[in-house]
Amino acid sequence: MNNERYERGVQKFKEIKGEKGEEAIARLKELDPDLARYVIEFPFGDVYSRPGLDLRSREIATIAALITLGNAPLQLKVHIRSALNVGVSRREIIEIIIQMAVYAGFPAALNAIRAAKEVFEELDKEENEKRTKITRTNKFIPRLVKINEKSRIRQNKSKRHRRVL
Amino acid sequence: MNNERYERGVQKFKEIKGEKGEEAIARLKELDPDLARYVIEFPFGDVYSRPGLDLRSREIATIAALITLGNAPLQLKVHIRSALNVGVSRREIIEIIIQMAVYAGFPAALNAIRAAKEVFEELDKEENEKRTKITRTNKFIPRLVKINEKSRIRQNKSKRHRRVL
Amino acid sequence: MNNERYERGVQKFKEIKGEKGEEAIARLKELDPDLARYVIEFPFGDVYSRPGLDLRSREIATIAALITLGNAPLQLKVHIRSALNVGVSRREIIEIIIQMAVYAGFPAALNAIRAAKEVFEELDKEENEKRTKITRTNKFIPRLVKINEKSRIRQNKSKRHRRVL
Amino acid sequence: MNNERYERGVQKFKEIKGEKGEEAIARLKELDPDLARYVIEFPFGDVYSRPGLDLRSREIATIAALITLGNAPLQLKVHIRSALNVGVSRREIIEIIIQMAVYAGFPAALNAIRAAKEVFEELDKEENEKRTKITRTNKFIPRLVKINEKSRIRQNKSKRHRRVL
Amino acid sequence: MNNERYERGVQKFKEIKGEKGEEAIARLKELDPDLARYVIEFPFGDVYSRPGLDLRSREIATIAALITLGNAPLQLKVHIRSALNVGVSRREIIEIIIQMAVYAGFPAALNAIRAAKEVFEELDKEENEKRTKITRTNKFIPRLVKINEKSRIRQNKSKRHRRVL
Amino acid sequence: MNNERYERGVQKFKEIKGEKGEEAIARLKELDPDLARYVIEFPFGDVYSRPGLDLRSREIATIAALITLGNAPLQLKVHIRSALNVGVSRREIIEIIIQMAVYAGFPAALNAIRAAKEVFEELDKEENEKRTKITRTNKFIPRLVKINEKSRIRQNKSKRHRRVL
Repeated sequence: MNNERYERGVQKFKEIKGEKGEEAIARLKELDPDLARYVIEFPFGDVYSRPGLDLRSREIATIAALITLGNAPLQLKVHIRSALNVGVSRREIIEIIIQMAVYAGFPAALNAIRAAKEVFEELDKEENEKRTKITRTNKFIPRLVKINEKSRIRQNKSKRHRRVL
Repeated sequence: MNNERYERGVQKFKEIKGEKGEEAIARLKELDPDLARYVIEFPFGDVYSRPGLDLRSREIATIAALITLGNAPLQLKVHIRSALNVGVSRREIIEIIIQMAVYAGFPAALNAIRAAKEVFEELDKEENEKRTKITRTNKFIPRLVKINEKSRIRQNKSKRHRRVL
Repeated sequence: MNNERYERGVQKFKEIKGEKGEEAIARLKELDPDLARYVIEFPFGDVYSRPGLDLRSREIATIAALITLGNAPLQLKVHIRSALNVGVSRREIIEIIIQMAVYAGFPAALNAIRAAKEVFEELDKEENEKRTKITRTNKFIPRLVKINEKSRIRQNKSKRHRRVL
Repeated sequence: MNNERYERGVQKFKEIKGEKGEEAIARLKELDPDLARYVIEFPFGDVYSRPGLDLRSREIATIAALITLGNAPLQLKVHIRSALNVGVSRREIIEIIIQMAVYAGFPAALNAIRAAKEVFEELDKEENEKRTKITRTNKFIPRLVKINEKSRIRQNKSKRHRRVL
Repeated sequence: MNNERYERGVQKFKEIKGEKGEEAIARLKELDPDLARYVIEFPFGDVYSRPGLDLRSREIATIAALITLGNAPLQLKVHIRSALNVGVSRREIIEIIIQMAVYAGFPAALNAIRAAKEVFEELDKEENEKRTKITRTNKFIPRLVKINEKSRIRQNKSKRHRRVL
Repeated sequence: MNNERYERGVQKFKEIKGEKGEEAIARLKELDPDLARYVIEFPFGDVYSRPGLDLRSREIATIAALITLGNAPLQLKVHIRSALNVGVSRREIIEIIIQMAVYAGFPAALNAIRAAKEVFEELDKEENEKRTKITRTNKFIPRLVKINEKSRIRQNKSKRHRRVL
């Protein structure tokens, strides 16, 4: 059996996806066990595991491809997270998106910016929630209230972003 | 007038395209002077000149986008040359192409590999021709003959590559 | 008038769409009467009515095309139902989708699997509802409760499926 | 600085988008100030401001392009509004969409018709709301009630349209 | 039979394609008689024959769609000729192409400009050949020589255009 | 090592491609040994080797996908040959192509018909050449001359087909 490729794929998948990797594999398997196995084996066990190109460059290429395809918004959001995990900065992601206006057109770039903003806000919220939990255990209640307020303001702002251009 | 953007665009264009830049701008202008101006001003004067992302990463993104589009083989070949100019290796270009099989499908990757091979062979031939010229002025005629033979062999091999898969 | 083509189209449309055909034609007409007429006349009255290829093969081709287009998720779901109606099995639909990873890329395949799972669950639910109605008239109330429970479990499970990969 | 192009872009943007232009620019800026500037400068300050083609023809071309891309439904809806603003009639928009069935396929045309119907209904609703406001200030309360009723009926009808084909 | 639609289609096809229409229909039939019939009947007999949009606007939409598709260069060239036949000027065609850089990306626009330039040069050559024939019958041999020379110069220039960007 | 998948892939590849399979694998390897290995392993060793769908249906799906992609004319021609090898008739291939006019648009269908005609003519020519060889060994020279004449006529006719629509 191809145990080796699958195992290598799981390792690479988790390296790229970070802490959410385990959960993502479970969801993939629930969707379809065979396609899930191929996703782990070929893209991650074979391709992303090849030594000839660093993961940062690989995620830049993937984000450019997904913006250009234009019909996989969920995967674009997942790979924006992955890119951040392997060392691409938020600023660099915005740069890739702006550059795609040249090749894939302005509508593709605008849709991708919206997706990136959503990911950034989700990450900020997750970060806030983590900090809030720690704060709560430490009983710094007054500060907690403030953070929640900020978080609410950011969420409202985020809803405005989602409104159509 | 937008002289500043145009001038910055010409500089960036030449930095990316290398020695063939001047000639490429001339051909662009002959095609359509207005579109040529926009190509210099927006993609090169505005986008590629932005400081937030290095040129190597920008060319990786562009190559990924052009493979995914799949209908701009000439531009793909031009940007494979550009990528080599700004520090992407031949091996890394092959890696990007192989990775695109995952996102744009195997036919797109196979067509891109063929384009890359053509560029690599054109570059080898150009390199050989340059060396031959130098050799000729230096009167090392016996060695020159050998190089030409090699070059002929490579060309024949290259024709085989072009045959359809 | 083209009564003949339209009538043939309605017949073929109903043959392919099954019991929901009538309702679908009504919705098409409400959307735009002229485009609705063309949909019935050309794809169904002309193309699907041609004798040279069986309906099973036609729906396989259509599903492959819709996965590859990637931007018509609603039509993909409708044609997954049609394919099931004309003799393609659930398993075969999954096979077509997995195969499309090779040609249209993994994101297209993953989005299509999600669509297929949604259709399968909708069909199971419809099937359950029908059986429940029959059961109710037959006063087998204890069994009915069980079925409803199962259906609720399945729905919850289905919501998990919808979460992004 | 490129003040001239930006200012010309803002003027052209407002000319095309109508009364909602100001708000749309604000949302663009909030999304990403740099990409927003490029959107104003290049498409609107440069391209749409060129004298060689009237705005009506430009919006016809843009709508055809967005239907064909198939992955920018929001931008399609925005440009259907723009087209109406610069003299394309509702009937003509429907004609362009029907014609696109020939080049981009029937699914693309059906999705575009749905988008157009949504825009038309939004516009009717906005029109009704404006008239209602005027009526209210004029204290014609009995008539107002009737208009609201009509508007509710239209909304319900509109929900039916949105149901998937 | 659908004689009416087919006849209307042939009329519209010839109206749009001009003097080359007859020959084009013959070639279509030789390719595949059934698909040829559908091409005449649906796009031309049904769609282009609809009264709601003028032919000039229809060809603008078609050119925009074909540039955006990016994979039908032959049809793009044919429709550039058609557009010229129904009143779109060369300048306006260039404007549509430049505008498509915004929606379909710069590579698509550059490829389309190259196609348009080829069509314009073919038309100039055909025009010259016609004039030459008339001149020959009129025995103005000295002038004829001059025209041929010009035409040769233009052809050489045209070959330069074709070189890749 | 993945010897098993590779070997299974080679077997399936040859089963689908027929007598030209060996040569095609050699060309793939020459293009890029790694991508060649992946092509054999994943599409052929994994996907086409799965038991859930017959090869005839698989090739129907692949042809539909390649017509829809529209940017892989070489692969489309290769898979038209494959489809014929696994039991799809010429007539059925034409039917799939005509049907794709509905989903991928008429230009995609017209380009695909042209590709199919080229494949059919290449196959007829290959068939003729084989028969000619056998005939030659059997010394039926008078008949051979006739066959060659026919073949020349067919070739001339084929050149006409290639002219652009």
